[in-house]
Amino acid sequence: MNLLRFNYTTADWVVYAPLRKLRPTHGTSLTHRSSDPLRDTKEFCPFCPGNEKMTPPEIYAIRPGGSAGNWSVRVVPNKFPALRIEEDPKRHEEGEMFHWMAGCGAHEVVIEAPDHTPIMQQPLAQIELTLKTLQSRYLDLKRDKRFRSIIVFKNHGEGAGTSIRHPHWQIIATPVIPRLLSLECYQAAEYFNRTGNCLYRVMLDEELAAKNRLIAANDQFVAFVPYAASLPFETWILPRLAQASWTTMQPQQIRPFAEILKTVLLKLYDALENPDFNLTVDMVPTGDDDKEYFLWHVRVLPRLSTPAGFELGSGMSINTTMPEEAAAFLRDGDGR
Amino acid sequence: MNLLRFNYTTADWVVYAPLRKLRPTHGTSLTHRSSDPLRDTKEFCPFCPGNEKMTPPEIYAIRPGGSAGNWSVRVVPNKFPALRIEEDPKRHEEGEMFHWMAGCGAHEVVIEAPDHTPIMQQPLAQIELTLKTLQSRYLDLKRDKRFRSIIVFKNHGEGAGTSIRHPHWQIIATPVIPRLLSLECYQAAEYFNRTGNCLYRVMLDEELAAKNRLIAANDQFVAFVPYAASLPFETWILPRLAQASWTTMQPQQIRPFAEILKTVLLKLYDALENPDFNLTVDMVPTGDDDKEYFLWHVRVLPRLSTPAGFELGSGMSINTTMPEEAAAFLRDGDGR
Repeated sequence: MNLLRFNYTTADWVVYAPLRKLRPTHGTSLTHRSSDPLRDTKEFCPFCPGNEKMTPPEIYAIRPGGSAGNWSVRVVPNKFPALRIEEDPKRHEEGEMFHWMAGCGAHEVVIEAPDHTPIMQQPLAQIELTLKTLQSRYLDLKRDKRFRSIIVFKNHGEGAGTSIRHPHWQIIATPVIPRLLSLECYQAAEYFNRTGNCLYRVMLDEELAAKNRLIAANDQFVAFVPYAASLPFETWILPRLAQASWTTMQPQQIRPFAEILKTVLLKLYDALENPDFNLTVDMVPTGDDDKEYFLWHVRVLPRLSTPAGFELGSGMSINTTMPEEAAAFLRDGDGR
Repeated sequence: MNLLRFNYTTADWVVYAPLRKLRPTHGTSLTHRSSDPLRDTKEFCPFCPGNEKMTPPEIYAIRPGGSAGNWSVRVVPNKFPALRIEEDPKRHEEGEMFHWMAGCGAHEVVIEAPDHTPIMQQPLAQIELTLKTLQSRYLDLKRDKRFRSIIVFKNHGEGAGTSIRHPHWQIIATPVIPRLLSLECYQAAEYFNRTGNCLYRVMLDEELAAKNRLIAANDQFVAFVPYAASLPFETWILPRLAQASWTTMQPQQIRPFAEILKTVLLKLYDALENPDFNLTVDMVPTGDDDKEYFLWHVRVLPRLSTPAGFELGSGMSINTTMPEEAAAFLRDGDGR
């Protein structure tokens, strides 16, 4: 059974998901799932058309040819979920320090295309379908009042933690507000309370004025390497409209969103030779959509360096690439 | 020049250390230092006896044979430091959001033995010398009032971010209080204020009573997999004495500390076949030594899994191994 336990030293919850009955044998087989090259072939890939029976039952799909046709985007529950909708978020306490709850939540996979073309090489129309699907799933999950927060993310490449090459996004709904999201909201609310302004809006305006960290912009979105980027080539995408989450994202924003996302990921692909990366969408907790202090944003996090003892001990980051340098390199492609 | 920039969205500082003049050419050469197998040989290893000229000038050493003799432990500045004592911690503000300071701090390397024997296979007397040296350097760095926090850590294995195999620890003194440390202290102080008890003491007592997550114990220290461990096989070592930092660590604690550290690391080595790991020592910020709410502790963090988009997006962890299972497996060696 999956569950969550509360870490009192940092006030956050840890998810326990013993994906299968782990039978200790030896070595790291306990914890490592090695990737299976067979799964990259159309015959054995669980996300390819024709293999639909290899996934749990479909939650949602877009079938341009009608309900019996081929799908363009398909949503299924994760086969080895971190959290499950069947569980109850009731808290249990044992002693002073041992505090747990069942693994209540949701964990969905959004298969973003029928084939293995990575996102930055897909047609814009395909990326639009994926973004529409992600928003639709976000809105549906949000209706379950047990879920306090919905994390939308994508892993690209084995070094970024993905085990299936077929391009996909994931959505995890949590019954608690995760630590990083709490922190971001607290800081933004505090800034708003003090100044009357949205921290992310001020940041966006100052990045637009400074220009030297900008990567791309259109009439709805701006992409830049933030002034205090934690990682080399970390890139953020912010909307120009005041929106704290995807609840209020408008249909006319989807195309410009797909465009800037493709542009940023293609620049990374070209400049850094297809780096592994994670991509996360930061939004306010469900129910805080009307808050003026936050702008939802995408963080693209290339996996070019390995966090070590200092980062794990302090929570601080050491970044070896200045944001201005990273931005210039991305703007100019591979430097030629 | 190294510097720190303030990330307003999370209220923490990011260290920028462009280790050498980075000339963008192509690909990940910008950010990756590939490890050089030559440096594993005695002839080319910068930390081996005879190659002392390959490091910056020595800060400290233990030479059992007198000042001209061979060293047993040697401390040098990191050749590519994250932070440097020559810098000034004055804050600079540009606009509303752009806030920086020079890279003031210290970054030392403690070479823990003349040869490449890893820590868990060294004689206890050698580990004792290293721990004494680490405490001595901690106490010396603490005298510099610009330094707010001192992070002591060790990386073992390439997957844990180390580039030199010769066993060594590192110490980084920071001019700010890192986010994770702030958070741990805040939570512990809040608990103390509410209950009158030390959070870590209560945790230690409850782990001792529960027994099922214990790994080892002696008259001065206890090692266990914490109830809410973030990572598979994460192991903590806590002192039995009320100590918030190494300022008050007593000479008679060094031997038991070396013993339990060796025991824990040897169990990990045997059970998981020499896994990569990071090891950090969490202490209160300098100047808070007398605080009753904190116990300094060692966190051993095996690198068996890859954090992905959910972890980076939420700050939460997904752990696939239950702490009780990990502890039983470590206690029983490799399961035979």
